[in-house]
Amino acid sequence: MELLKQRILKDGRISGTDILKVDMFLNHQIDIDLLNEMGKEFYRLFQSWDITKILTVEASGIAIACIAAQYFKVPVLFAKKCESRNLDSDVYQSKVYSFTKEKDYLIRVSKKYLLPSDRILIIDDFLANGRAALGLIDICEQAGAVPCGVGIAIEKGYQRGRKLIEEKGVKVEALAVIDSMDEHTGINFS
Amino acid sequence: MELLKQRILKDGRISGTDILKVDMFLNHQIDIDLLNEMGKEFYRLFQSWDITKILTVEASGIAIACIAAQYFKVPVLFAKKCESRNLDSDVYQSKVYSFTKEKDYLIRVSKKYLLPSDRILIIDDFLANGRAALGLIDICEQAGAVPCGVGIAIEKGYQRGRKLIEEKGVKVEALAVIDSMDEHTGINFS
Repeated sequence: MELLKQRILKDGRISGTDILKVDMFLNHQIDIDLLNEMGKEFYRLFQSWDITKILTVEASGIAIACIAAQYFKVPVLFAKKCESRNLDSDVYQSKVYSFTKEKDYLIRVSKKYLLPSDRILIIDDFLANGRAALGLIDICEQAGAVPCGVGIAIEKGYQRGRKLIEEKGVKVEALAVIDSMDEHTGINFS
Repeated sequence: MELLKQRILKDGRISGTDILKVDMFLNHQIDIDLLNEMGKEFYRLFQSWDITKILTVEASGIAIACIAAQYFKVPVLFAKKCESRNLDSDVYQSKVYSFTKEKDYLIRVSKKYLLPSDRILIIDDFLANGRAALGLIDICEQAGAVPCGVGIAIEKGYQRGRKLIEEKGVKVEALAVIDSMDEHTGINFS
């Protein structure tokens, strides 16, 4: 998606060879107009899949998922990361390793809101090693729901997340795929 | 806002005398159509305030803030709760006590995205003791930005959050104000 790529080139900041900061428009300050264009594009890519619900994980996936859900006319469900007194004990959960934070965490979804009849689109801001998406696919499978696809804003194409998800038989679409990046030479999209 | 009150009566679940679970439509599974109606109402209430940015805190405020932002045509900025390698070190921060989790946590906003010229609408899902909102007001004040108002989905009117915020000279609007609730007798709105 050209608009997102141009915005990454304009406002993204690279740190070293693997960290891309997009906190100006995507995951801290949020450009809602951009998210609407991204939501339309996700809808174009997945509109034939009869999606019944969009699943994401807190916190930075929520904004993209909610704006996109307006085009699909479906609810959003976001997995919670932290143990919370206010979440039902009756949950599906999956353990996810965060390379950013260098630790495991649990993601959890109440069993009430994920049904065998659900056809799920997973949406997240980044895809790198795919751990969060694989955890969400695991949760769909526990519920007997169909994980139809994974829609990603920015994919680090040089990492293996896409391969691991596609091996599960789940379609992956990313709006911007980075082939390589470096703070000196910049970003190359595929 | 009648639509929200009716939805709380239909799908909210009370636990004891102080916990209201709205995870079916507001802070776990999210009804985007409802959020759009809430966004329109926030816009009606704050449209004359020349809002330049909506500020919220992760995670459950993000959805409401982003949908509402479409009516104001402004960006969203969400304060982060956890220390994150990907957040700039150059931040405004405020300490917030969570009664739900019974501990202090820090909320942080990058200095780059909050300016003295900003007129801020703070949006969150719940108002009870007002700690999160007061932390966000504190962050606005650190930046020299104007905290114009606080827009809340559900206020526990029997707690003192509103009073503490209004003492700061900041307008509070809540779409549903609960006067009392109890799992046996139900919810009374003001």
